[in-house]
Amino acid sequence: MPETPGSNGLEGTTLVLGGAKSGKSMYAESLIEAAGGGIYLATATAGDEEMRRKIAAHRDRRGGGWETIEEPLDVAATLARLAGDGRQQPVLLDCLTLWLSNLMHAGSDIDRSTTELETALRAAPFPVVTVSNEVGGGIIPDTELGRAFMNRAGILNQRIAQASDHVILMTAGIPQALK
Amino acid sequence: MPETPGSNGLEGTTLVLGGAKSGKSMYAESLIEAAGGGIYLATATAGDEEMRRKIAAHRDRRGGGWETIEEPLDVAATLARLAGDGRQQPVLLDCLTLWLSNLMHAGSDIDRSTTELETALRAAPFPVVTVSNEVGGGIIPDTELGRAFMNRAGILNQRIAQASDHVILMTAGIPQALK
Amino acid sequence: MPETPGSNGLEGTTLVLGGAKSGKSMYAESLIEAAGGGIYLATATAGDEEMRRKIAAHRDRRGGGWETIEEPLDVAATLARLAGDGRQQPVLLDCLTLWLSNLMHAGSDIDRSTTELETALRAAPFPVVTVSNEVGGGIIPDTELGRAFMNRAGILNQRIAQASDHVILMTAGIPQALK
Repeated sequence: MPETPGSNGLEGTTLVLGGAKSGKSMYAESLIEAAGGGIYLATATAGDEEMRRKIAAHRDRRGGGWETIEEPLDVAATLARLAGDGRQQPVLLDCLTLWLSNLMHAGSDIDRSTTELETALRAAPFPVVTVSNEVGGGIIPDTELGRAFMNRAGILNQRIAQASDHVILMTAGIPQALK
Repeated sequence: MPETPGSNGLEGTTLVLGGAKSGKSMYAESLIEAAGGGIYLATATAGDEEMRRKIAAHRDRRGGGWETIEEPLDVAATLARLAGDGRQQPVLLDCLTLWLSNLMHAGSDIDRSTTELETALRAAPFPVVTVSNEVGGGIIPDTELGRAFMNRAGILNQRIAQASDHVILMTAGIPQALK
Repeated sequence: MPETPGSNGLEGTTLVLGGAKSGKSMYAESLIEAAGGGIYLATATAGDEEMRRKIAAHRDRRGGGWETIEEPLDVAATLARLAGDGRQQPVLLDCLTLWLSNLMHAGSDIDRSTTELETALRAAPFPVVTVSNEVGGGIIPDTELGRAFMNRAGILNQRIAQASDHVILMTAGIPQALK
């Protein structure tokens, strides 16, 4: 079994998967905290009240040494821009399932966006920790939108897992290294 | 990887997690059966037909040497009372998600109740095996109540996992030791 | 931890479990591809458009050396017939949850059908890889049919896991050997 990334040596790309409230974001943050902080690339925007509270909670939980970038759609270009700027801090990309939801609302080409993200992750000169929700473990949703979201999230998770160096599965706050 | 608790040596506190019909209760019971039986602390009550059938099925499955206590809400006080009475048998607390549902219906303070349970588990002079459902692995529920329950169950599972010595994840009847 | 079945030596019976779009079918196919192909025992039938597309996608993904049998209900008898015909190729049974759904629609005796499948798997003289969905990881479904399906699928997975030599859990395309 692969080891969970420890405080000594965050490197490459890591996907942190898990169900709702399984401790994904907190674990992902702890990996980057242990490396001295980094860039919080949030796919949520502060545009509505619930998101404002979620972002504020993230901010309160984190220590110093963080910078926040909100980017609901073009995360690949943001990663490429950070690389082009010569940035070296680790990036926390949180989270893929909200990004997918944003892409679906915007009518974006999800397959192409996923390919761009795969490319950006493989090229990143800094560590990237990506957070994503497992959503395929329940019964098949009643609605067509629910089924479409579940299927697309599953495919997205498979593709980003394959493009990542490490994959961690969270259960009740406990990390399991899958890759 | 930690070992699953075997028949020789049930000790401390164990959280058995898993989805619906993943074999959680049966595995938890088997841990206590192997120690010669114990106290079945049921958060279900025999107040309705479905629960009567569920409790009866549990009873039929278990061997002799068991005592049943029904306590839908104040499980921490029950554990403390058993400790105060000098009891030493292992306790099977089944299950946390129904307990959460009971607390929500009763309008109880869930955070405080969780803190009390953490304290009781840490202080218990006898082995305690706690059963809880994983409910955060599907798509986000349509209803606000569904989302609230999912979120609270996830946080509860994280807290009790942290307060427990061992954590077991069940899949199709197969235990995996997470902690 | 048990090893995942590799390309060198598919033997006995293997259950491949996972959520929706977790890579179950593709992994199961790869096990049989590595053994040179086999028999695709599909519980889906080409009777409707979605299934036609799914079966076509499976066919496109697979290499040569495959034979397809569609059997929505009596998979145990199909396995027994293949054994009686002296067939030795590995069989991919995909998938159990659709089979359960077919049995429920047909009003079949699910417990007896499950017993027959257990018997057929234990007697099979060729390797069998069975695919099934994990559906119990979300919140309790709103509808009685949803709850019944979730409960029956969980029990079916437990029974077939117990009757199988190997059990693999897929997450985002990554296999974990549970047994």
